[in-house]
Amino acid sequence: MAAVTPPASPLSSGDPTYRAGVVDLLGVLGLGELIAFDRMSADSGLAPTLADKAALAAMAVTEFHHFERIRDRLGDLGVSVDEAMTPFRTAYEEFHANTAPSDWLEGLVKAYVGDGIAADFYREVAEAVDPETRELVREVLADSGHSDFVVDRVRQALDDDPRVAGRLALWARRLVGEALAQAQRVAVDREALAALVVGGADGDGLDLAQLGDLFTRLTRNHAERLGRLGLSS
Amino acid sequence: MAAVTPPASPLSSGDPTYRAGVVDLLGVLGLGELIAFDRMSADSGLAPTLADKAALAAMAVTEFHHFERIRDRLGDLGVSVDEAMTPFRTAYEEFHANTAPSDWLEGLVKAYVGDGIAADFYREVAEAVDPETRELVREVLADSGHSDFVVDRVRQALDDDPRVAGRLALWARRLVGEALAQAQRVAVDREALAALVVGGADGDGLDLAQLGDLFTRLTRNHAERLGRLGLSS
Repeated sequence: MAAVTPPASPLSSGDPTYRAGVVDLLGVLGLGELIAFDRMSADSGLAPTLADKAALAAMAVTEFHHFERIRDRLGDLGVSVDEAMTPFRTAYEEFHANTAPSDWLEGLVKAYVGDGIAADFYREVAEAVDPETRELVREVLADSGHSDFVVDRVRQALDDDPRVAGRLALWARRLVGEALAQAQRVAVDREALAALVVGGADGDGLDLAQLGDLFTRLTRNHAERLGRLGLSS
Repeated sequence: MAAVTPPASPLSSGDPTYRAGVVDLLGVLGLGELIAFDRMSADSGLAPTLADKAALAAMAVTEFHHFERIRDRLGDLGVSVDEAMTPFRTAYEEFHANTAPSDWLEGLVKAYVGDGIAADFYREVAEAVDPETRELVREVLADSGHSDFVVDRVRQALDDDPRVAGRLALWARRLVGEALAQAQRVAVDREALAALVVGGADGDGLDLAQLGDLFTRLTRNHAERLGRLGLSS
């Protein structure tokens, strides 16, 4: 994404569309963390042991601390959590309503795959924003190392019963499909955010070819993650 | 509780009943934190705004970090989470099944009252154990300041509609009744833990008069907490 030249200090540049885009970016990212906390906490109820429950709960807690960072940054910008995040509530709630895991393994795959795709996407988008916002997004998205736990548990389950692989691979495909459907919906609803990502009249953001490259990278990383779980994409 | 003289280094003293009691104490306390995390996370779904949801989620996350401290200590003692905590699972699950809040205010009162009573009780019990365990219990139970948020929200609700007070006071009484019922059950099931609290043949722990004093203090503190919420006990 070397072709993208983010503005140096855009939040003070007075461009209201840019500022709205950054607030949207923080809002959609922060709410994603808060709702992920919510869902992972609930899904930890599917765990076979208390230690496993605690491991998924720890992933949920990491998401919550990320949310806190975003909330604080929004506060610095004078924007409340509810103002910035409510516009994205329906999209996340529909995503999670359509992807409620039916067992512990589906919950693990969802936590791993969903977290991974979201992190890839937001990290790319952050290339188009000012350095301070970008740094915050990168910090929030840094892998916290909990994914080893998921890989270990899913691989163990596949060792125990290889037939599970087909079901989980289908499940991962459904997660991606639902995520794309909601992302499309958000892009249509939130012009300022879409302008950040795909570029406005002033040439910031990605052009169509770059957007294609972005999807290629997201798809490739997703396939690699599935491979680590022992699943085909 | 000045009459109680805790053993100086009892975990290395080779007394198996004492060690079992301490493992039980850590187990019942740690599971309480983990399940409280679970329930508060779920109850945060009752919040009217995302900011309120995040505030209750933050209380849940604090409970989870307390759980982590207990888990680590159990690990030092060579005891797994599942080994130490599973014996208390039914009691907590029944408590929470019988006290599922029907709205946001009941969820707040439960978080505040439940947390308060549990902290009072465990802090008193910790007087009867070795200094290292006692210090850990005290640290884990230190008020993390989130209760101001609950007091503020409940008082605001009572200002808006004073009729809510009667219902919430009844709710608080039910919480205490259910907690006592489950505590009684645990005391019957777990002899080593009961011996820590009420004293065995060797005279450690509380005698009957001291146990009466303990309940008096718990009741008084509970009434004070309700008073801070603007409720009568």
